[in-house]
Amino acid sequence: MVQRYDIAIVGSGPAGLSASLNACVRKKKFIIFGNKNYSDKLIKAVKINNYLGLSGKSGVEFKNEIDKQLSLMNIVVTEEKVNTVFAMGSYFIIVSDKGTYEAKTVILATGISFEGAIDGEKEHLGRGVSYCVTCDAQLCKNKVSTIISYSSKYETEAEFLLGISSEVFYVPVYKADVKVNSKIHVIKDKVISIEGGYKAAKVQLKNESIKTDYVFILRDRISPIQLVPGLKMNENHIAVDRLMQTNIKGCFAAGDAVGKPYQYIKAAGEGNIAALSAIEYLQSLK
Amino acid sequence: MVQRYDIAIVGSGPAGLSASLNACVRKKKFIIFGNKNYSDKLIKAVKINNYLGLSGKSGVEFKNEIDKQLSLMNIVVTEEKVNTVFAMGSYFIIVSDKGTYEAKTVILATGISFEGAIDGEKEHLGRGVSYCVTCDAQLCKNKVSTIISYSSKYETEAEFLLGISSEVFYVPVYKADVKVNSKIHVIKDKVISIEGGYKAAKVQLKNESIKTDYVFILRDRISPIQLVPGLKMNENHIAVDRLMQTNIKGCFAAGDAVGKPYQYIKAAGEGNIAALSAIEYLQSLK
Repeated sequence: MVQRYDIAIVGSGPAGLSASLNACVRKKKFIIFGNKNYSDKLIKAVKINNYLGLSGKSGVEFKNEIDKQLSLMNIVVTEEKVNTVFAMGSYFIIVSDKGTYEAKTVILATGISFEGAIDGEKEHLGRGVSYCVTCDAQLCKNKVSTIISYSSKYETEAEFLLGISSEVFYVPVYKADVKVNSKIHVIKDKVISIEGGYKAAKVQLKNESIKTDYVFILRDRISPIQLVPGLKMNENHIAVDRLMQTNIKGCFAAGDAVGKPYQYIKAAGEGNIAALSAIEYLQSLK
Repeated sequence: MVQRYDIAIVGSGPAGLSASLNACVRKKKFIIFGNKNYSDKLIKAVKINNYLGLSGKSGVEFKNEIDKQLSLMNIVVTEEKVNTVFAMGSYFIIVSDKGTYEAKTVILATGISFEGAIDGEKEHLGRGVSYCVTCDAQLCKNKVSTIISYSSKYETEAEFLLGISSEVFYVPVYKADVKVNSKIHVIKDKVISIEGGYKAAKVQLKNESIKTDYVFILRDRISPIQLVPGLKMNENHIAVDRLMQTNIKGCFAAGDAVGKPYQYIKAAGEGNIAALSAIEYLQSLK
């Protein structure tokens, strides 16, 4: 049976974590998706000198403080990547790379993605372009699949597809060596666009092109509008009001994802607001 | 000569303090007005359990962390009470109980005042009603003055007035014993309203009334609209946009003063935004 939560928090940076503290204190049934380092940006910080109450700590020291705090409150970050959040009206369905969840409210704390969309990506989404191999692998049985991958951790996805598709192309958009089964065609070239008619049919690279039936684009972060169909954006950020409410009822957002300045304390403050707004919304459902 | 600052921060709760950290890091010439305990609300907190990075600290422990942090950054809170901020167009004049300052930008982090206005207070402001004895004492030479006081610390103001006014009434709105010169008429009664025609002429109490020429209302906090003439409010809060800009150019606001939830981390986050917005505005002046 699918678990239903009061609050699902997507993202474990300062905004998501701050939201989780409030959900916990207010005894809501919640789940927070993210990773055990919380945020890559956080642990890379050399010194944080404008976070009230943390005097000159490094990102790693801040992380250690958070470790302590979460452990005291029994908060555990669920290490899964959320691929899609569907607004169902009175609740949400959250699909991660490992499972499906339900929640009455969602807080998006996904950070800002600095990777722009590929030309033709948005146009062909759901029509030959997908962000999730696990979800759509069966659609490319005996067909040609191409993975455009932004991280070496997606090499296993290529190997998984190899057992299903007739042919697998792998285009790494990163510098590390690619270590995959030799049957996979690894093509190191700059991605220009995804082309086709109604359905995607070709990946155009700088020096060549790949004829393909399916294109998987695998990034650590996907843009909020791809994550939550129907979400209203304000240029590159999720549009929210001062109570962190998005255009979708029960869906809140906080942190870098909703706008500048990109600062830890600003994100944490907004996570607090988003959680308390979600709790007030939950109350209104009763 | 009056000192001119880049940024004047009014209030030393989490919002004002957070703003000061950013002003400091960004090497702006700034001043922060408040008190050495930072915020009464802060030091009274038994345990803060939803401030990311501070695990289960009490308000006093949080204060000690802040002491350390400010001292490392050489930030000193100026212990003066700001009575009025005048927007002069391209700069601001800040009048405290001890001096006058100029600043290119102002950040209002005054918290929320839970004391409502007295009936007739707003209507007679500047016409027999004042918030500042030092500013307006000369106007009541040989006249009858009445002080409505919300704290025993204003008893010295009554003694100061005694040497100027012909008669001084003192109405304490607090429980502590009143220790003032016996020539001052201390009247312990509930304040109902301030009455008069164009000018205030009477303080109506529950059981009696005082005929008076001037009424001084002395509170620890005055409402933002009284502090900054022309400031736009949104019910009881200062109206701001998501960048913490008020309706007055160069004037920003943050913390409880701009709205709920009344939470430390939310206030600190907004202080960060307000400071960075002020810095961006300063940049635009060049």
